[in-house]
Amino acid sequence: MIIKGEHKRTIWVDKNNSQLIQTFDQRLFPHEVKIVDITTSAEAGVAIKDMIVRGAPLIGAMAAYGIYLAAVEYKGDDVLAYLNERKDYLNETRPTAINLAWALNEQFKNIDGLTDQSEMIAALFKGANKIVEDDVETCRMIGEHGLQIIEEIAASKPGETINILTHCNAGWLACIDWGTATSPIYQAHQKGIKVHVWVDETRPRSQGANLTSFELNEQGVPHTLITDNTGGHLMQHHMVDMVIVGTDRTTRSGDVANKIGTYLKALAANDNHVPFYVALPSSTIDWEINDGVKEIPIEMRSEDEVKYVYGKGKNGMESVLICPKTTPAANYGFDVTPARLVTGLITERGICEASEEGLTNQFPEQKR
Amino acid sequence: MIIKGEHKRTIWVDKNNSQLIQTFDQRLFPHEVKIVDITTSAEAGVAIKDMIVRGAPLIGAMAAYGIYLAAVEYKGDDVLAYLNERKDYLNETRPTAINLAWALNEQFKNIDGLTDQSEMIAALFKGANKIVEDDVETCRMIGEHGLQIIEEIAASKPGETINILTHCNAGWLACIDWGTATSPIYQAHQKGIKVHVWVDETRPRSQGANLTSFELNEQGVPHTLITDNTGGHLMQHHMVDMVIVGTDRTTRSGDVANKIGTYLKALAANDNHVPFYVALPSSTIDWEINDGVKEIPIEMRSEDEVKYVYGKGKNGMESVLICPKTTPAANYGFDVTPARLVTGLITERGICEASEEGLTNQFPEQKR
Repeated sequence: MIIKGEHKRTIWVDKNNSQLIQTFDQRLFPHEVKIVDITTSAEAGVAIKDMIVRGAPLIGAMAAYGIYLAAVEYKGDDVLAYLNERKDYLNETRPTAINLAWALNEQFKNIDGLTDQSEMIAALFKGANKIVEDDVETCRMIGEHGLQIIEEIAASKPGETINILTHCNAGWLACIDWGTATSPIYQAHQKGIKVHVWVDETRPRSQGANLTSFELNEQGVPHTLITDNTGGHLMQHHMVDMVIVGTDRTTRSGDVANKIGTYLKALAANDNHVPFYVALPSSTIDWEINDGVKEIPIEMRSEDEVKYVYGKGKNGMESVLICPKTTPAANYGFDVTPARLVTGLITERGICEASEEGLTNQFPEQKR
Repeated sequence: MIIKGEHKRTIWVDKNNSQLIQTFDQRLFPHEVKIVDITTSAEAGVAIKDMIVRGAPLIGAMAAYGIYLAAVEYKGDDVLAYLNERKDYLNETRPTAINLAWALNEQFKNIDGLTDQSEMIAALFKGANKIVEDDVETCRMIGEHGLQIIEEIAASKPGETINILTHCNAGWLACIDWGTATSPIYQAHQKGIKVHVWVDETRPRSQGANLTSFELNEQGVPHTLITDNTGGHLMQHHMVDMVIVGTDRTTRSGDVANKIGTYLKALAANDNHVPFYVALPSSTIDWEINDGVKEIPIEMRSEDEVKYVYGKGKNGMESVLICPKTTPAANYGFDVTPARLVTGLITERGICEASEEGLTNQFPEQKR
């Protein structure tokens, strides 16, 4: 997608130096665009740990390049022992990120049976590139399927703008390119369909304000920032044609865990007959569990994320306290939207009903 | 209620000087407690215009004292002409605040037929004091009725804490004492019932974080600040026993206009069988309209309230930008919760169903 007028991905290999990986410092978005060089496995680890990069697919890609750089940088006799040590190091940078462990395991499969260091380097480089290209293709396919929904709405109101509400950032900045929830929007925009996006601020970390509005702004997609309180009012007044969000985990029965507040928007969509879609790569489906509200553990994060708001002040980036210092706060990271409130799931294979039947028809290899 | 350990109201007459009115500078809450002296009608006007005071009942009381101070300060021959000029001045300080015009009209009724300036001063002083005492009594009665609901819940789970969720600030800082939505909570707390309040931050102006958590903190009522996104998750997990909010306008049919985001909490309460109550003085009922979503105009406020967050930074009070500077924002101030989602209305006369029948049984003088 586009940043500062140039086509970019969130991570790439320098075209003259295959040992130089580059990425954006996402902590500075939307106020500054800064490219960071990654040339060692330690730098890859710091980029993940310090949240220079975030978003499950992007973290996975960074880890995959990190283990490749480890093979490049090693000067001793037992490269496999070193790679195992670096795998543990990278795995611990964000222990709950499922894609991180998955990407590292994929990379170790790629060097299974190899003993020559240069062969390993080549295999790990190829493997990291494949993880990146596969993610791009998954996101592109999600967009292609989701585009049909937008086209149908467009056909029902010719010439009018399609208003789409989204929560948090399920955009290309969390992935490599396209994003998940944003992919249908970008594809519709590129096809010349008039879309406008209502961007939920998404407190406490304000990823909607910081990242989604930044993405859409750079891409030239018309959008308006709103507080998380606003979506219900807009839907009551027919100002939303569809809702589309991402997900962190989807159950076998189609329940969807996503950023806290998603459930409230699903309720409002349901109450106002607004279609509510969830875009996801099938890798986020947890085929082992059924009841999302009962079975998905919800991460509790620091209360300071609620009590302080981070943004650009007069003297640079700053946090401001918005409540009495002694007031306690609770910070639940996610909530679960029951399948009954979800109009459809959009995966790389197509659109299906949010139910075990819908999902296993699309993924027959998961039928029991 | 209590601030810094002392019993206070939001506005009072100095006990040694009946021409000195005092109030708090609410712009500094929760970070500083500063008392402001009001000794002229101009100072009363500035206090309203600059939002040193806010909240409909408190604005009304300040205007009532303002017109009293106008009578005190006048040195010429035509006091009535001066009072009329000051009435216009005060009315224009916050033109949409309904209690402002109402309080000034009440004061003019109090001096109807009087010609002697000292008699006018006495009548206006008495009138302002009556407006204050009436509001305190209305809020106290709302609390007494609402207390019954909390007592019933307490009886159903003996020894356990009652968890109450509220949105925005319908507290004593917006009134003179007790508040509306907070009044039942304070009365339950004073009776020794174990209550805990989930305080919605209430973006964009964060009145929950700034004011409600400050009130509860000063009063010693256990509470936890949450983002506006969180209530649905809490209700799904049986962590909310009731919701209670205030209202800016209630229709004849029981639809409730309140701070943006209230509707989303009502939907979540409905979906999880959590009782959802609205506390209101009957003065906020608009007997002339029925359909809240269609008929209540919703104020649009400055987009900067969405794009910037105001709080206490390293160098004092500051605003921080949370999105790209060029991103547009929309700032709807209120939304409408349809009567079907409201368990009951709590007024100074008791608890009734949110319907024309329920309301006109409680206010038979409004039957058609």
